[in-house]
Amino acid sequence: MAAFERLQQQINFILEMDKLKNVFRRTYVPGTDRHENDAEHAWQLAIMVMFLHEHAAEPIDIFKVLKMVLIHDIVEIDAGDTFCYDEKGYQDKAERERQAAERIFALLPSDQCREIWALWEEFESRSTPESRFAAAVDRLMPMMHNFHTQGRAWQEHGIRAEQVRERNRHMAAGAPALWQFAVDLIQKAVDNGYLIGP
Amino acid sequence: MAAFERLQQQINFILEMDKLKNVFRRTYVPGTDRHENDAEHAWQLAIMVMFLHEHAAEPIDIFKVLKMVLIHDIVEIDAGDTFCYDEKGYQDKAERERQAAERIFALLPSDQCREIWALWEEFESRSTPESRFAAAVDRLMPMMHNFHTQGRAWQEHGIRAEQVRERNRHMAAGAPALWQFAVDLIQKAVDNGYLIGP
Repeated sequence: MAAFERLQQQINFILEMDKLKNVFRRTYVPGTDRHENDAEHAWQLAIMVMFLHEHAAEPIDIFKVLKMVLIHDIVEIDAGDTFCYDEKGYQDKAERERQAAERIFALLPSDQCREIWALWEEFESRSTPESRFAAAVDRLMPMMHNFHTQGRAWQEHGIRAEQVRERNRHMAAGAPALWQFAVDLIQKAVDNGYLIGP
Repeated sequence: MAAFERLQQQINFILEMDKLKNVFRRTYVPGTDRHENDAEHAWQLAIMVMFLHEHAAEPIDIFKVLKMVLIHDIVEIDAGDTFCYDEKGYQDKAERERQAAERIFALLPSDQCREIWALWEEFESRSTPESRFAAAVDRLMPMMHNFHTQGRAWQEHGIRAEQVRERNRHMAAGAPALWQFAVDLIQKAVDNGYLIGP
């Protein structure tokens, strides 16, 4: 492939990424009245990976985890954000996201398309220390956002503490200390009336 | 230091990062009527580093460049965004940003505070292949955003093509192929009437 054509494919992929700034999550940005978008969220997870990696359950390749969290939600450009307590939405989430990956990742030159597929599949699998740690920070941040907005998104969707514990318990496999922090945060949220207990 | 206190410092730093989502740049998010924020911008640069690193002028440590672009604008939480064509704003930019770094980076445990200072100073210095490449992608993206919003921010601020070339010429030292791409884009912007030529 001509060098110019390769660069043009890469640039088209980068431009497509602007759309992730318009995919909104259920959580609110603390101190504002707006929902967080997927691009901001991915950035904040990357910052968490940079400064919390010592809490991983096992030794991890930090560079790989960074790349994983940076790309983990790109499929939501087409598939949309699925609220983690939305059981119905989860039924066809995998299929919707796979179709999105097929379209979006194919914008890249084929070698880079294979690289991003591998990263995304590893993230989704939670089968490696890296993907389990990435999943742990991905689950911790929305709990922190909920806590620091007095449980706003939890309350809007009638979420109960037992659901939060059940849905996020897998954090323990990736980052036990962060899961313990989350368990304490959930209890404080119940005590403060941000989240329906017990 | 107790492990709990260390984790609490790290968490406080992560929470402080939410503020970067409210620091707005002059560029617009294509397809919307809103300005881009610094958190989204840092994420997009990281994606560029992941998929454009082959265009670096010299061999680079990609992991380091990723970390650099992820943290490069954090000081703007206090110092605000300085428009790159704002000559007056540039007079005290360095001092405002240094004061911001002193407050914000000190939220971290001391070893991580030193790490982020070193990354940020290297980014600002443009003295290494990594920092020159980071600077190149940091300059390319706003030009692409301007082009794909019909030059909106350029026109709002009366920016001319010669200013764009002059301000971004240093890209050539970090990524010659990306600078060539930018030169062509600037010319196309003039031809399309998005930017005041010649």
